[in-house]
Amino acid sequence: MTLSCVADYERAARRALPPETWDFVAGGSGAESTMRANLAAFASVFVIPRALRDVTGCSTAASLLGSPVSMPLAAAPIAYQRLLHPEGELAAARAAKTAGVPFTVSTMSSVALEEVAAVGGTTWFQLYRLRDERRCLELVERAEAAGCEAIMVTVDVPWMGRRLRDVRNRFALPESVTAANLGGRGAAHRRPAGDVPAASAVAVHTALEFAPVTWAWVDMLRGRTRLPLVLKGILDVADARRAAEAGIDGIVVSNHGGRQLDGAVPSIDVLPEIAAAVAGSCEILLDSGVRRGEDIVKAIALGASGVLVGRPLMYGLAVGGEDGVRDVLGLLATEFHGALGLAGCGSPRETRLLRTTFARN
Amino acid sequence: MTLSCVADYERAARRALPPETWDFVAGGSGAESTMRANLAAFASVFVIPRALRDVTGCSTAASLLGSPVSMPLAAAPIAYQRLLHPEGELAAARAAKTAGVPFTVSTMSSVALEEVAAVGGTTWFQLYRLRDERRCLELVERAEAAGCEAIMVTVDVPWMGRRLRDVRNRFALPESVTAANLGGRGAAHRRPAGDVPAASAVAVHTALEFAPVTWAWVDMLRGRTRLPLVLKGILDVADARRAAEAGIDGIVVSNHGGRQLDGAVPSIDVLPEIAAAVAGSCEILLDSGVRRGEDIVKAIALGASGVLVGRPLMYGLAVGGEDGVRDVLGLLATEFHGALGLAGCGSPRETRLLRTTFARN
Amino acid sequence: MTLSCVADYERAARRALPPETWDFVAGGSGAESTMRANLAAFASVFVIPRALRDVTGCSTAASLLGSPVSMPLAAAPIAYQRLLHPEGELAAARAAKTAGVPFTVSTMSSVALEEVAAVGGTTWFQLYRLRDERRCLELVERAEAAGCEAIMVTVDVPWMGRRLRDVRNRFALPESVTAANLGGRGAAHRRPAGDVPAASAVAVHTALEFAPVTWAWVDMLRGRTRLPLVLKGILDVADARRAAEAGIDGIVVSNHGGRQLDGAVPSIDVLPEIAAAVAGSCEILLDSGVRRGEDIVKAIALGASGVLVGRPLMYGLAVGGEDGVRDVLGLLATEFHGALGLAGCGSPRETRLLRTTFARN
Amino acid sequence: MTLSCVADYERAARRALPPETWDFVAGGSGAESTMRANLAAFASVFVIPRALRDVTGCSTAASLLGSPVSMPLAAAPIAYQRLLHPEGELAAARAAKTAGVPFTVSTMSSVALEEVAAVGGTTWFQLYRLRDERRCLELVERAEAAGCEAIMVTVDVPWMGRRLRDVRNRFALPESVTAANLGGRGAAHRRPAGDVPAASAVAVHTALEFAPVTWAWVDMLRGRTRLPLVLKGILDVADARRAAEAGIDGIVVSNHGGRQLDGAVPSIDVLPEIAAAVAGSCEILLDSGVRRGEDIVKAIALGASGVLVGRPLMYGLAVGGEDGVRDVLGLLATEFHGALGLAGCGSPRETRLLRTTFARN
Ligand SMILES: Cc1cc2nc3c(=O)[nH]c(=O)nc-3n(C[C@H](O)[C@H](O)[C@H](O)COP(=O)(O)O)c2cc1C
Ligand SMILES: Cc1cc2nc3c(=O)[nH]c(=O)nc-3n(C[C@H](O)[C@H](O)[C@H](O)COP(=O)(O)O)c2cc1C
Ligand SMILES: Cc1cc2nc3c(=O)[nH]c(=O)nc-3n(C[C@H](O)[C@H](O)[C@H](O)COP(=O)(O)O)c2cc1C
Ligand SMILES: Cc1cc2nc3c(=O)[nH]c(=O)nc-3n(C[C@H](O)[C@H](O)[C@H](O)COP(=O)(O)O)c2cc1C
Repeated sequence: MTLSCVADYERAARRALPPETWDFVAGGSGAESTMRANLAAFASVFVIPRALRDVTGCSTAASLLGSPVSMPLAAAPIAYQRLLHPEGELAAARAAKTAGVPFTVSTMSSVALEEVAAVGGTTWFQLYRLRDERRCLELVERAEAAGCEAIMVTVDVPWMGRRLRDVRNRFALPESVTAANLGGRGAAHRRPAGDVPAASAVAVHTALEFAPVTWAWVDMLRGRTRLPLVLKGILDVADARRAAEAGIDGIVVSNHGGRQLDGAVPSIDVLPEIAAAVAGSCEILLDSGVRRGEDIVKAIALGASGVLVGRPLMYGLAVGGEDGVRDVLGLLATEFHGALGLAGCGSPRETRLLRTTFARN
Repeated sequence: MTLSCVADYERAARRALPPETWDFVAGGSGAESTMRANLAAFASVFVIPRALRDVTGCSTAASLLGSPVSMPLAAAPIAYQRLLHPEGELAAARAAKTAGVPFTVSTMSSVALEEVAAVGGTTWFQLYRLRDERRCLELVERAEAAGCEAIMVTVDVPWMGRRLRDVRNRFALPESVTAANLGGRGAAHRRPAGDVPAASAVAVHTALEFAPVTWAWVDMLRGRTRLPLVLKGILDVADARRAAEAGIDGIVVSNHGGRQLDGAVPSIDVLPEIAAAVAGSCEILLDSGVRRGEDIVKAIALGASGVLVGRPLMYGLAVGGEDGVRDVLGLLATEFHGALGLAGCGSPRETRLLRTTFARN
Repeated sequence: MTLSCVADYERAARRALPPETWDFVAGGSGAESTMRANLAAFASVFVIPRALRDVTGCSTAASLLGSPVSMPLAAAPIAYQRLLHPEGELAAARAAKTAGVPFTVSTMSSVALEEVAAVGGTTWFQLYRLRDERRCLELVERAEAAGCEAIMVTVDVPWMGRRLRDVRNRFALPESVTAANLGGRGAAHRRPAGDVPAASAVAVHTALEFAPVTWAWVDMLRGRTRLPLVLKGILDVADARRAAEAGIDGIVVSNHGGRQLDGAVPSIDVLPEIAAAVAGSCEILLDSGVRRGEDIVKAIALGASGVLVGRPLMYGLAVGGEDGVRDVLGLLATEFHGALGLAGCGSPRETRLLRTTFARN
Repeated sequence: MTLSCVADYERAARRALPPETWDFVAGGSGAESTMRANLAAFASVFVIPRALRDVTGCSTAASLLGSPVSMPLAAAPIAYQRLLHPEGELAAARAAKTAGVPFTVSTMSSVALEEVAAVGGTTWFQLYRLRDERRCLELVERAEAAGCEAIMVTVDVPWMGRRLRDVRNRFALPESVTAANLGGRGAAHRRPAGDVPAASAVAVHTALEFAPVTWAWVDMLRGRTRLPLVLKGILDVADARRAAEAGIDGIVVSNHGGRQLDGAVPSIDVLPEIAAAVAGSCEILLDSGVRRGEDIVKAIALGASGVLVGRPLMYGLAVGGEDGVRDVLGLLATEFHGALGLAGCGSPRETRLLRTTFARN
């Protein structure tokens, strides 16, 4: 069977995975209105391409957070990737390395961050603030020691969004998948009780382990690491401004793929005003809804330096392990390169100057 | 079966109820375009959450019309609740009390207001202006005597909207359900005659009993009670302003859940201009289309102090009596609490400061 | 079977009529995009009702072109009504008389205008400019002599729109239905030849008989009759202004129910700017897409004095002859009266002051 | 079977063609979002017709790039028309001649340009910049020698858009169809290898043969020919302005029918600003999504002098060869003429003055 775009991988992954695993990956919170809106928002952006430019040597290469990348895209942090494939994060990180893009290892990785970082390539570490401050700072030290090149603090999970599919499925991790960085099995494996469980096991686990990130805490963290510090989950321009003022190196404009506040704005909708406010003082990444190379062009035209991609890589992982992820990244690269030239841009940087408009209906 | 959100209760209620009862509760007037538009309007509002706030102690508690509430929500006045469950208003009021939210007893309650108020908790009385002025003022006195804490005058029912489902079903009340506050059976029980009845029995009854509320009448009423006075059914900003000038304590921005003027604007659409005009001088509640905790966040962000919830509680009542209503209120509380924190708000008051935007398509 | 609104009559008419007759009445020109847009445009208008007004004595009575009417609605001119019922225009005119609304008899009436006018009630005459000037002016004289109270010149038919359904059906009039005012059978009865006929028989007939109306011709006509002169088919504000300057008494803002220029704007969309330009100097009627009493409220709120209703009356005629038309008019009156009061208006005139807004999506 | 509009021909062509040929013609690039948006954008434009004009002698005649045309429409350049019918470009050119509209012969024509030009009528030559400069300039000389009346340089194909249907079908040309102007068979005939080919054979061929067009190259070309020079594939107003300054005679505002950059703006959306910038100094044609005569009215009202039509003519060719193309052109002419008069315009030029508006939803 020919898989020629992310949508093909999505369909194939759905067939390949047990329904409750599919739901865990593909689903969102609440009525999933933000999740759907993410795609609709991208679809409603039109690019106005330039013509008559010599794009012969057109290159997708760029740099993100100081690291050279083959294209302005990084693998978003995704928890528990061994749910999707026995090799989990190792397979995905290898594919990212081959593709020349950074891999972000999650606090909730099912493979220890050191093993993932040992794959080589550019590794970023995604940090959830743990209630246990000591363990939390240890994670940062481990990431530094392992050679991670950025710390990405997720700021939109004071607690987990209510993901109805997981609640309905009474979703719990299988024994074989653990939060390897945190020392293994815990509440995330205990199938929740009650006729209508309030939350999935993973959400319960999160509630027990995580604490809300605050500005004060970020200031503290800023003093503890020399790695670039990125805040993931910014949507309000005032928060973006404050991040820039706090000496933060980058932000990820994100609604967590529609998995946190249902009803939250699509990240691409707020990107322009955030870019107008902080571009130059703070690197802007964006995620939530990137599904095609053309979406990367849209994100950059609207103000981002690059994007994170979440679910699409997981679909690749579910379908074909390392090969699948590499193939998805290859398709995105092919599409992005094609789109760059068709938009008259010789490089990602030039797409920043493209004009955009919105669908009328 | 797992019921995890209002939509689940809606489906279950539809299965549980006789079709013509379902239609009476779930339906709207005319082409039901306003009823549908209420949901679409909520769906098209996006919230821009704040991040990096310490929401650990986040509380949904608030106060409405001077009473403390566990969350800024009250049960909307709904007529004839014994249609849905033998215990009717008693069951619903008990659930509201347990949940810590006010219960509004309708003039057309199928349980006498005194019995409902005796449940305890915060009880509000919804007043329809009766043609018989003496009986009408007696209702107010009874409500005061029974300990109701507010009088909510419904101002959008000079007569009942034409609800086609009820017309088609020749809907009439069963013998067992009566307008208990008004002394029992009447026109609402006589199945309308003719091949194409012009109106349902309930509408005929309304037409015989009710008179349009006027400003002069409200002024009179203002002089007769010291309870907070609320006008339910305001959509035009000029009416809101006049209410504030007339010393009214609160308004409910409402289109009666799409049951009165079909083609009337969704209440959430006019809320911002009304809030800009009267917030501060007059408490603003909103109803019509609230279906999720996230909708409460939207309503407050756009200017309301809180919301009334109508049909969702009736779905709970139909499915599980008191337990069902309590569960629906519990789900709304869970969703609202979850959303508060995910939006970076430690309290309902803080959600007032959230920015919003609208879906482009 | 209960028919409780125009949509019910529409469905019933579709079942009652031979497909090609249904298509002739229900269809539009081209891709029928304007025809569909007419309904969508009405649906996207929201009314902001006023509350707390004493609407007890609320009356739908008004006056149109100087005649008192029971509600601000007239029967639109519709050709060949005997296609739908053996009594054709006679049945419809009788129903209009009973309902207290004007009946507009078409140039292409299948019953002679004198017979229709003899029904009594208010009769208006719709004039197509005929190529044969003498016959055309004779029509005007006949209309005056028969007691018609207005001449409505249709200005949007220099030729007939291309109605694909009729082309595909090779639609031609049956022998029994003729253009009675024009002396009976003609090209409209000859089924068009060829594998892909360019036009239906009715369109061919129109092309042979009609000439485009011009300002000069209208000036001439203005000098020939003392009856109120109305131009039907105005959509551009400049044309509306010119009509007012030319001493025209009224205009019908109309796209001919989506049967002439496909892609033409819905009339309700251009009504506000036309009302701003000419209200006061020239009476403004509107048609194209009125399907409910609430639509009449919308049209008046946006600037019209009243509306014409086309297809809905024909659905009534097809289903039940005179009774059917009377019933449809009764339903519209019930809906309009209901909506008036629910919008806080004691009369059609007061609805002029209602504010409106538009659906966001 | 009656074919009465382009949509009918589209359906018939789909039935008539082998699936992979259908896909090649009907498909677009990427997710085909621009291809779909082209149609939606036209549908959302409303025309405000003028009334009371004498359109009796209404004529569709106009002139495009200095040549008289029966209507302001030309056949868009389409590669490999022998895929659709054995007579290919000859059949289409003959039909265009009969219809009185220019035929644009593609660089990738499957019949040599000289043979096509020998048909007579107005022939334009579409030029792709070839990597082999000498062969490229030879094409221009051949076109001049053959009597072509304009050179239309396509500027939006630095490389071919990724057309997923062709990739999935492993589309390659059959032996019988060749790029006749370029000396016949080549990479376009070799079915691509691999489980997931990166591109279709036609795209591979394009990549091997074409070079991106630049302003410098256009300046060079401007010096080499005295024929009118047209740039096809402009969407940004700055490029339009630069074309005018460079002495270019015309531009085609086009997204290549949604076959190049997926996500590119519909051409009709950017037409007004381009017309405001360059109308008068440079002739403006438009293509991408024209499907009805009414669309031509819209394009002119929004600023174009005329349109190119692509796929619709190919549907005619597939269904009926020369007769089919002639019939499609005839239908478009009938629709356009009908629409002109219904809009109150005596000529294409007058449609320039029509006002337009946009659908609200
Ligand atoms: C299954 C799954 C697990 C995720 N786990 C994490 C995580 O551990 N940490 C984190 O910051 N974000 C996590 N995310 C959010 C992603 O990093 C990213 O924001 C989101 O997937 C982007 O949207 P997209 O999937 O539409 O590309 C997760 C997302 C998914 C789908
Ligand atoms: C079955 C039913 C009965 C109602 N009865 C009353 C009533 O007696 N008095 C009143 O003021 N509103 C009444 N309402 C309107 C509600 O108070 C409220 O405005 C509406 O239900 C809010 O919309 P929602 O159902 O979308 O939440 C009724 C609504 C329903 C659905
Ligand atoms: C079957 C049919 C015949 C019509 N005949 C005429 C006519 O003879 N003269 C005229 O001015 N308009 C004619 N019209 C247009 C109507 O007067 C009116 O403008 C249109 O029906 C209004 O739109 P509606 O059907 O959506 O109410 C006709 C419309 C229909 C549907
Ligand atoms: C099958 C096909 C082949 C085409 N070949 C060419 C070509 O050789 N040169 C060119 O400039 N454009 C080519 N085009 C683009 C058309 O000239 C034109 O821009 C497009 O078809 C317009 O959109 P429409 O099909 O919606 O009318 C081609 C389009 C199609 C559908």
